[in-house]
Amino acid sequence: MTIIDSRITDLQVYPLAFSDPPLLNAAGVHEPLALRTLVRLQAGDVVAWGEGRGDALPADVVPALCEAVLGLDVFATSRIEAAVDTVLRRLRPDLGAQARLVTFAPIEVAALDAQGKLLERPVSELLGGALRDRVDYSAYLFFKWAGHLDGEPDEWGEAMDPDGIVAQAKLLVDRYGFRSFKLKAGALHPDIEVESLRALAEAFPGMPLRIDPNGAWTHQTALEVAHRTDGLLEYLEDPVLGIDGMSRIHAETGVPLATNMCVVETAHLRPAVRADAVQVLLSDHHYWGGLRRTKELAAICEAMDIGVSMHSNSHLGISLAAMTHVAAAIPNLSHACDTHFPWNRADDVVTEGGIEIVDGAVTVPTGPGLGVEVNLDRVAELHERYVESGHRTRDDGGYMRRWDPTFTDARPRY
Amino acid sequence: MTIIDSRITDLQVYPLAFSDPPLLNAAGVHEPLALRTLVRLQAGDVVAWGEGRGDALPADVVPALCEAVLGLDVFATSRIEAAVDTVLRRLRPDLGAQARLVTFAPIEVAALDAQGKLLERPVSELLGGALRDRVDYSAYLFFKWAGHLDGEPDEWGEAMDPDGIVAQAKLLVDRYGFRSFKLKAGALHPDIEVESLRALAEAFPGMPLRIDPNGAWTHQTALEVAHRTDGLLEYLEDPVLGIDGMSRIHAETGVPLATNMCVVETAHLRPAVRADAVQVLLSDHHYWGGLRRTKELAAICEAMDIGVSMHSNSHLGISLAAMTHVAAAIPNLSHACDTHFPWNRADDVVTEGGIEIVDGAVTVPTGPGLGVEVNLDRVAELHERYVESGHRTRDDGGYMRRWDPTFTDARPRY
Ligand SMILES: [Mg+2]
Ligand SMILES: [Mg+2]
Repeated sequence: MTIIDSRITDLQVYPLAFSDPPLLNAAGVHEPLALRTLVRLQAGDVVAWGEGRGDALPADVVPALCEAVLGLDVFATSRIEAAVDTVLRRLRPDLGAQARLVTFAPIEVAALDAQGKLLERPVSELLGGALRDRVDYSAYLFFKWAGHLDGEPDEWGEAMDPDGIVAQAKLLVDRYGFRSFKLKAGALHPDIEVESLRALAEAFPGMPLRIDPNGAWTHQTALEVAHRTDGLLEYLEDPVLGIDGMSRIHAETGVPLATNMCVVETAHLRPAVRADAVQVLLSDHHYWGGLRRTKELAAICEAMDIGVSMHSNSHLGISLAAMTHVAAAIPNLSHACDTHFPWNRADDVVTEGGIEIVDGAVTVPTGPGLGVEVNLDRVAELHERYVESGHRTRDDGGYMRRWDPTFTDARPRY
Repeated sequence: MTIIDSRITDLQVYPLAFSDPPLLNAAGVHEPLALRTLVRLQAGDVVAWGEGRGDALPADVVPALCEAVLGLDVFATSRIEAAVDTVLRRLRPDLGAQARLVTFAPIEVAALDAQGKLLERPVSELLGGALRDRVDYSAYLFFKWAGHLDGEPDEWGEAMDPDGIVAQAKLLVDRYGFRSFKLKAGALHPDIEVESLRALAEAFPGMPLRIDPNGAWTHQTALEVAHRTDGLLEYLEDPVLGIDGMSRIHAETGVPLATNMCVVETAHLRPAVRADAVQVLLSDHHYWGGLRRTKELAAICEAMDIGVSMHSNSHLGISLAAMTHVAAAIPNLSHACDTHFPWNRADDVVTEGGIEIVDGAVTVPTGPGLGVEVNLDRVAELHERYVESGHRTRDDGGYMRRWDPTFTDARPRY
């Protein structure tokens, strides 16, 4: 047996811009370009990848980060985390603990991809082993315009009422076989949103439903929606903002509440538990600090008698693979995970056929590491789009104001 | 690169009996023989070891457990856990979830030892990497008789008063360089125990102190001890039994409370957090289900703003190595860990010089797996002692009644 060389010898960062449809939400509407960051890491004789948020690795900290992690062992992810943390505390003292984990997350994913490739084992095995062969995802429905402000109608069509939502749901079910629905709400009047849920329940009897207004509702509206959707929902997601508000809604309605807003970092967990504010935590390895910390988060939820599922932002196939590996390794995964993947699939960086949603689920990759191959031409193309577009930050509200100058994302709105 | 063969091909279980001094505690006094269980696991071309409690692998379930885990991959510890769980649910439906984890724990340790040996990496690296080179342990002081009932005085001498405890502390400091003390209490009248703490504080100025009566005190006694030891202790350990009782003591005194009694399984965590009953959790991988679950437990504690240290029962060097690896990988380890190791070191199964306490700390082993070599002759010898002695269960109370027939371990006692 020979000792495997597993020290990091190179770290490259590729900010990417890719096409996104005009999806409405409480903050505004998705712009024509969405942003993500890829990390390419070399260790020993393997090349590994991680995907993070668009703001995960700001250009000004990349050189110092590279210097800090070069030479570290990809197996020692806690030490890599400490190195990243030290650099950010020095260069970006404005960032909080959670923001620092956003930077670490794609590096951790790449380190696990490297570990898996070095050992010829899937990442799920490095997280304790897959407990299921396939991970269920939910169809993520959005109210949307027919196309972007200055563009052609897109392939998805308009969805600004219950009929439009049902048509969108049918399209997603036809293509991907989804067996549950999540409706992004907080974009239109609650009456339309609740009617859309009812229309879905009628068109797809027995399929689990959820709705997520991103805290756009008042306490009173949330109570009314909870009442009007009684028996219709698996859970209600972030009906109002804040741990106190969530706690009151749950106490008054008994409806299980999910969140990816009022509990987004470790410090929020204790107050949420003490207030019984959350019954399902929507984890997201992109801001909880990677796959191992996500698995730990699931253990915290198990201990605190809180269900676990997964939140999504616009993402590419490397993250879909990463989400699938960790979801497969979480014993107490309680609901189908969220994913935006169908909305951005056309621009994906994973080589065609490498990761797919079939019958509403993704088969856990069994190849080494994340088990997906990266299309380098596509990475180059999307990086060029990032450079040429000048697009640097997500601004759903600003984009919405181009259409409606009076728009504000102040919450609660309804 | 070739794929490493990592399936379990053999599992052997060795119950052991080894010498233990007459250490007093609220349950009685340690018998002349203590019990532990070793697991020897073969995977690919490596042999790996785990150590568990004396009752971890009862003889009647061993054949079914072996059958269930043979062929499983040592990397898929969650699947091994599920296999162990399934066997125990079938054969021992009387066992609760925590008791099933007691069985899994030494198997998980052996699986991690195997992983490390297959990869030529220390176990700490498989847990995210060591964050410290050395792990601090505390000197574990006991009131004790000069020797066993039918035996000669032992090398440690009698310790039935403050002077005896200080002499014992000096001996342990001389030999192992400890830099903090834990006094096992609940054995004598609280006045003697508090006086012993004061004597330690005087003899070793500035050294951190703790006291653990294992819930032997009434609410009133615990309040009085907290008052009389004000400013003297790092924390007070299990002054009373139960989450409610602990919660009241903390609320009334503000003294940080540690436990390895009122929170010993996942289901206890949420109520303890909601009642603010525990400020330092003493983890123990032997009953929390192994090293990975212990690391998760530390993450739970971090999230819940609870400190983390480590509980000990009489153990051998394989466990000392395992405890040291996981302690090194826990970012939020807040206090020196407990260990009985000095009391049982003479009978240790780790090859001489393989694991040592020096200057009050154990250097994290850097060799493959747990990084310790097992003395097979010693294992055979201690297994023979187990077989020949007929000693099968720990009974501190029964042994104490041979000396004082009126003894009862009913709590609270004082
Ligand atoms: Mg949400
Ligand atoms: Mg204790």
